[in-house]
Amino acid sequence: MIHRRTEDVPYVKVAMEGVEGTSMQWLFSRLEGAPNFSMRRFIISPGGRIGLHAHPWEHEILILSGRGEAFTPDQRASVGPGEAIYIPSDEPHGYENVSDEDLVFLCMIPNSGDTRPPSDG
Amino acid sequence: MIHRRTEDVPYVKVAMEGVEGTSMQWLFSRLEGAPNFSMRRFIISPGGRIGLHAHPWEHEILILSGRGEAFTPDQRASVGPGEAIYIPSDEPHGYENVSDEDLVFLCMIPNSGDTRPPSDG
Repeated sequence: MIHRRTEDVPYVKVAMEGVEGTSMQWLFSRLEGAPNFSMRRFIISPGGRIGLHAHPWEHEILILSGRGEAFTPDQRASVGPGEAIYIPSDEPHGYENVSDEDLVFLCMIPNSGDTRPPSDG
Repeated sequence: MIHRRTEDVPYVKVAMEGVEGTSMQWLFSRLEGAPNFSMRRFIISPGGRIGLHAHPWEHEILILSGRGEAFTPDQRASVGPGEAIYIPSDEPHGYENVSDEDLVFLCMIPNSGDTRPPSDG
């Protein structure tokens, strides 16, 4: 059993085109020996966003705190704590924090979506 | 994109030997087309527990609210909101709510651990 407190896990700035004001933490991944999927925690600051993008792996998401909008080309959902989002693989999607507090959510991906270099955290 | 509120997802009583006062919800799983892993939400009421047990798949867990204890044969951790737990496959583990409020946590498993009948929720 590995037991970690969120605040002890390093924050990584998300530096992708179309992304503003977003950092994330890899809570568990292949680096801890997880063989199948990774649990990440995202923090989008007020006014921040992750623009529309797509990739060949799915997301399973739970909003932890704050409010924001999740969108696809033809759907826009206002989301808040306790709400869950599923994004199928290859579906374009994005998120926006339209509130005045951090939007924090857990976002799980299969290990196939962990595109970090093999030796890198 | 599928968007669901936790309160709209059916609760299932966990009826396993060694389990008391525990219900759970399948937020996303193969039933929604998730190809790799499932996101479940567990609620253990005060005094409830999931006794020591093991299975050939891992858990990635985040405590959402309440306090409790997670244990293995040689480790016992007091856990609370924002703390994360990784249980490797085949490691015996259990949880106990020693507080006076519900212990609520998210628990992810690979689809290989979804032992429900193929057609059943």
